[in-house]
Amino acid sequence: MSSPVSCDSLWSGATFVTMKAGQYHFIENGALAVQHGKIIWLGPKDAMPEIIAAEHHHFDGGIVLPGFIDCHTHLVFGGDRSAEFEKRLNGVSYAQIAAQGGGILSTVRATRTASEDELLASARQRLSHLLAEGVTTVEIKSGYGLDIDNEIKMLRVIRKLGEQEPVEIYATCLAAHAIPPEFNGDGDAWIEVVCEQLLPRVAQEKLADAVDAFCEHLAFTPPQTAKVFAAARELGLPVKLHAEQLSPLAGSSLAASFNALSADHLEYATDEDARAMAAGNTVAVLLPGAFYLLREKQRPPVEAFRKYGVPMAVASDANPGTSPALSLRLMLNMACTLFGLTPEEALAGVTLHAAQALGIQASHGSLEPGKVANFVHWPVARPAELVYWLGGQLPCSVIYQGVRRESSL
Amino acid sequence: MSSPVSCDSLWSGATFVTMKAGQYHFIENGALAVQHGKIIWLGPKDAMPEIIAAEHHHFDGGIVLPGFIDCHTHLVFGGDRSAEFEKRLNGVSYAQIAAQGGGILSTVRATRTASEDELLASARQRLSHLLAEGVTTVEIKSGYGLDIDNEIKMLRVIRKLGEQEPVEIYATCLAAHAIPPEFNGDGDAWIEVVCEQLLPRVAQEKLADAVDAFCEHLAFTPPQTAKVFAAARELGLPVKLHAEQLSPLAGSSLAASFNALSADHLEYATDEDARAMAAGNTVAVLLPGAFYLLREKQRPPVEAFRKYGVPMAVASDANPGTSPALSLRLMLNMACTLFGLTPEEALAGVTLHAAQALGIQASHGSLEPGKVANFVHWPVARPAELVYWLGGQLPCSVIYQGVRRESSL
Ligand SMILES: [Zn+2]
Ligand SMILES: [Zn+2]
Repeated sequence: MSSPVSCDSLWSGATFVTMKAGQYHFIENGALAVQHGKIIWLGPKDAMPEIIAAEHHHFDGGIVLPGFIDCHTHLVFGGDRSAEFEKRLNGVSYAQIAAQGGGILSTVRATRTASEDELLASARQRLSHLLAEGVTTVEIKSGYGLDIDNEIKMLRVIRKLGEQEPVEIYATCLAAHAIPPEFNGDGDAWIEVVCEQLLPRVAQEKLADAVDAFCEHLAFTPPQTAKVFAAARELGLPVKLHAEQLSPLAGSSLAASFNALSADHLEYATDEDARAMAAGNTVAVLLPGAFYLLREKQRPPVEAFRKYGVPMAVASDANPGTSPALSLRLMLNMACTLFGLTPEEALAGVTLHAAQALGIQASHGSLEPGKVANFVHWPVARPAELVYWLGGQLPCSVIYQGVRRESSL
Repeated sequence: MSSPVSCDSLWSGATFVTMKAGQYHFIENGALAVQHGKIIWLGPKDAMPEIIAAEHHHFDGGIVLPGFIDCHTHLVFGGDRSAEFEKRLNGVSYAQIAAQGGGILSTVRATRTASEDELLASARQRLSHLLAEGVTTVEIKSGYGLDIDNEIKMLRVIRKLGEQEPVEIYATCLAAHAIPPEFNGDGDAWIEVVCEQLLPRVAQEKLADAVDAFCEHLAFTPPQTAKVFAAARELGLPVKLHAEQLSPLAGSSLAASFNALSADHLEYATDEDARAMAAGNTVAVLLPGAFYLLREKQRPPVEAFRKYGVPMAVASDANPGTSPALSLRLMLNMACTLFGLTPEEALAGVTLHAAQALGIQASHGSLEPGKVANFVHWPVARPAELVYWLGGQLPCSVIYQGVRRESSL
């Protein structure tokens, strides 16, 4: 007979939905033991070995899922674009708005003008909405600074958010988001600054966990993107890509050839891109919020991703222009309603596959012994309810690194 | 010089957005005085007459709008349909689901089985989501009972909700929602029961404020609808109609000919329907949640409604099958993004025009002296922000009948 194991806390009284291998995997009347912020045991309560817990928390029914991971956001920015949103709906054209200094460059101006503290305060507020819905890990990108100092400023703010808030934050350098206004359309020149000056400094100061770019007609070409990727590889930083959002440029195949963690958006990705992504171990991150807001018609090739076994993640893309989204649960509904994912696929997309899009699937994204004890109790009968209800703030209890997190809203 | 006026409370320190005549109408640095639950004065603080207030509440910036009115919901029902939602996304057809007892009849079974207390408890929970977003008036329909006792049961639950919760609730009898399973497709027979037995009793017991029907191929024909309307008129009850959701049957013109308060859905309404609605003083209630969830393609004729001056309202249509919506703010975004309304039109659609869809525009829906003091403070810079942010629980303070309402979430 084995001797009793001791642990910091034991959680029981609910159905645990492990999302192991990206699937539901239900443990009814389950129990989960936490020691030093990690899961040390999980299974049916009946089958539990002798465990001496310092604390025992009993849920009164409901389900427990891994903490949600939002693996693609632009949560740090100055200003907002609600006035521009209203103008467009009043019939002002994109061209007119751009001529009036609107669009992404208005966010760049507001972000450059804002102090670190101002950026921190507004991002914290937006972040609180995600946290209230069970998010325990968030990726945040730079990309509205578009000069060395302001990109560094954004990344510092992202790091500070991660230090101050009860959530794990991954920082991505997206300096290749748009051509800075000062470069008058000369993308090559900015890419050189990014590769020669900015990325080395970002790497040295450990300000980013990954490097991203926006490969699109209005932004950067595949060769420019490849330069950024090569520089990142040189510095030991993994890459990701905004690819195939508005047109097919085979950016996702390029990303896959660099074993990118993820290629994101992908409305115009082809069967060949999907095959390349499978070979490159690159996650398909679907961003239905932007698809919805831009009233896009072309859907990402979900069938091809299934066929080749490309893991699909779902993220908020929270940004002031094309997806002012404050709810990851709404993105789950949109991923199903607009892209045809099943609720199980959508939930894998904000747990295990989102973890893989950040390169942390060994320690995050599912309820398994050895993984970080980030999990959420929802007072609902089945996981599909989290996807089904449209809006509203479903109450939930978040356990973050083994400890119950206080509500921040 | 006039003598000072006394009042129960004075509210200032924000921009008041009155929505008078369905338009923003901004009062910067405004003040609003409440006496006996009604607005007695509203204007720029500088221009305020001498007012002695028992309480003075000062907002620290932000905007104040009329309380939101959700003028079309089915919030009272048994069970939910998340399992069916998941089945459909896993490729099970509507026909198979119906053969397995799914669809609206599964909600009818669950509603018939539920006790009044059970229906009350689940509806109260769903209602709490709407209240948290600034809703002060809600319409709720019966229509899942589909026999006399269960329709009466639903209407009683709706009346109880209105007595117990800090929100004004209007009850609508929607017995003509679907043909009851016991009638084996014989719509005429059920309509006769509705007109001869149910409606007279509903009117006598004052259980409903209006009568509604579902005019569609799968439900009731225009002649059957006209019978219901005639019976309602006989009893002095105003009417509304689910019309033109999936096909053009001129139901909205029929409704207008009965001076219906509103015709709702309207994706397939014609220019002629719009003209008839203008003549009949019938509000166009747009329900983008169902349009979104059913992935409909045909949009309601917004241009025609503008041309003829038909007021447009926006509602959640909260129901377990086609719009499990718990957020009216999300519906505002969908009305703009999917139907092309401006934020101003959308906000008029949940204030003054929603009031008109309930026949209460003389006392509700805008900030004007004499109207009920239902208003909401939002800590945002401009009203469009309420439409722009996608999901999330924007914090707000709700003043209901002149008194600050405690959060119910
Ligand atoms: Zn993005
Ligand atoms: Zn309805």
